[in-house]
Amino acid sequence: MLEFAVLLGTVVFAISGVIAVAARRLDWFGAVTVGVVTAIGGGTIRGMLLGEFPVFWIADLEYLAVATAAALASIPIVKALRKGPVDRFDRGLQLADAAGLALFAITGASITLDLGFNGAVAVVCGIVTGVGGGVIRDLLAGRQPLIMREEIYATAALAGATLYVLLEVVVGLPGGVAGIIGVALVLSLRITGIRREWQLPAL
Amino acid sequence: MLEFAVLLGTVVFAISGVIAVAARRLDWFGAVTVGVVTAIGGGTIRGMLLGEFPVFWIADLEYLAVATAAALASIPIVKALRKGPVDRFDRGLQLADAAGLALFAITGASITLDLGFNGAVAVVCGIVTGVGGGVIRDLLAGRQPLIMREEIYATAALAGATLYVLLEVVVGLPGGVAGIIGVALVLSLRITGIRREWQLPAL
Amino acid sequence: MLEFAVLLGTVVFAISGVIAVAARRLDWFGAVTVGVVTAIGGGTIRGMLLGEFPVFWIADLEYLAVATAAALASIPIVKALRKGPVDRFDRGLQLADAAGLALFAITGASITLDLGFNGAVAVVCGIVTGVGGGVIRDLLAGRQPLIMREEIYATAALAGATLYVLLEVVVGLPGGVAGIIGVALVLSLRITGIRREWQLPAL
Repeated sequence: MLEFAVLLGTVVFAISGVIAVAARRLDWFGAVTVGVVTAIGGGTIRGMLLGEFPVFWIADLEYLAVATAAALASIPIVKALRKGPVDRFDRGLQLADAAGLALFAITGASITLDLGFNGAVAVVCGIVTGVGGGVIRDLLAGRQPLIMREEIYATAALAGATLYVLLEVVVGLPGGVAGIIGVALVLSLRITGIRREWQLPAL
Repeated sequence: MLEFAVLLGTVVFAISGVIAVAARRLDWFGAVTVGVVTAIGGGTIRGMLLGEFPVFWIADLEYLAVATAAALASIPIVKALRKGPVDRFDRGLQLADAAGLALFAITGASITLDLGFNGAVAVVCGIVTGVGGGVIRDLLAGRQPLIMREEIYATAALAGATLYVLLEVVVGLPGGVAGIIGVALVLSLRITGIRREWQLPAL
Repeated sequence: MLEFAVLLGTVVFAISGVIAVAARRLDWFGAVTVGVVTAIGGGTIRGMLLGEFPVFWIADLEYLAVATAAALASIPIVKALRKGPVDRFDRGLQLADAAGLALFAITGASITLDLGFNGAVAVVCGIVTGVGGGVIRDLLAGRQPLIMREEIYATAALAGATLYVLLEVVVGLPGGVAGIIGVALVLSLRITGIRREWQLPAL
């Protein structure tokens, strides 16, 4: 289940990377590279912070293969989206990013707990895993990072990862159940933020 | 004393991160995230280069707590500054950044020496610790990194870290005395640079 | 021979870094810093991914010394170029970058093989080594990364590193011969791309 959630997050983040550079004069492999970097970026930073070497996608090439396949397969989808209104295109990026953020914030926290770190470290590493790939994607694409533009972004990852850790470590729910609740919280916060331009008290 | 200097640097860099994104439509936690990343970024890069894992702020959550508290506490200060002239606001960022640069350049060099590396490595790691957090802050905030805009920036860190290492390793001064002299040199070089737009022969 | 190729790549990437910031109001040491970071950035990322600590340029200060010397020596060259047409200047950056990309894609793959990783990991780490320094350089300089602007960039590194690994591991050619062929392939693909604005089917 954890494995499946990580692979699903890998797929949606790879798609978000391809969307982010769709307007560039990149060749196919360039676009795939950005998709792959987006998909594995957050987990790579988490692994480096915790000292897990070699990083997960070198230790097990499955993730790199899935990210590459997802990026390649998304190119025709992205092309189709580009024929629609620009609006729908941007929404596609936001939704793929929200799904990746939710899945990686929770799986990142879960993996950190499994390595024996405490709940606070797990929450921080969940946030890092969730937001890391998207930040790298946006810097590469020359876009203002979503985390700098949108309300309820890092906050959504914080809320979901914290709830997940509390449910699993304190309440004692099975990891899968706690994880689904955590993912649902991040997703619903992000999507509410996207749809209503919901704002916390702005700085 | 080293501990105190690191915590002080953490505080001023966290403040600089909040100032850097004050004009953004970020929610409070988004601004705190940028402050925290700025505060721990330089030491994180140093630790990764040297192979110290898990990184210092995961091994000891005190730094993360101090950075978070400083970022939170600085939000009202930053709001107050924003009511003043823009000029004063930018100066606040430059001064907080200068203080962080000075403190982290010297403490970064000191920590590297304590790990048993030689003086040349300590100087390089001091520079990396001093400039790293600010570069990440400015990339996230979509600003041209200060290190790319200002004279006497990396140069100030180089001069201060070199003097500190010479005074401690070659001359044999006590670490605290050598450190204070090094911090004072970085600070005075940076502030002179800021005030007089002092220039080395420009490239 | 591997050592020589790494040092040559270090030199050309250091030069590319100085060129990239030549228009900035940086002092000399600021420009040298960017050159050095460009020269050692790709190998640093590779080492971190694979778990080789401390990173190569801390373990052996020779690389840092060569990068610093090359950056310093290139400042008069860059000044001379700046007196010519802007066009020639940009071409200098592209050519230095192409040489660095070719040398580091192959040496990065070779070093990864020597550490005992398989051919697929070697190809990926070759690409990372080849493109990493240039991406950091362009982000620091506030330029759109070359890898985001140019066709046949990551693709050239992929092609060359793959051919090199096949020739050395599968065909069994001596490493030096396989390496020269790989470097030649990356270089000729990149230079053809630069000269003819050759394009793969754009996304």
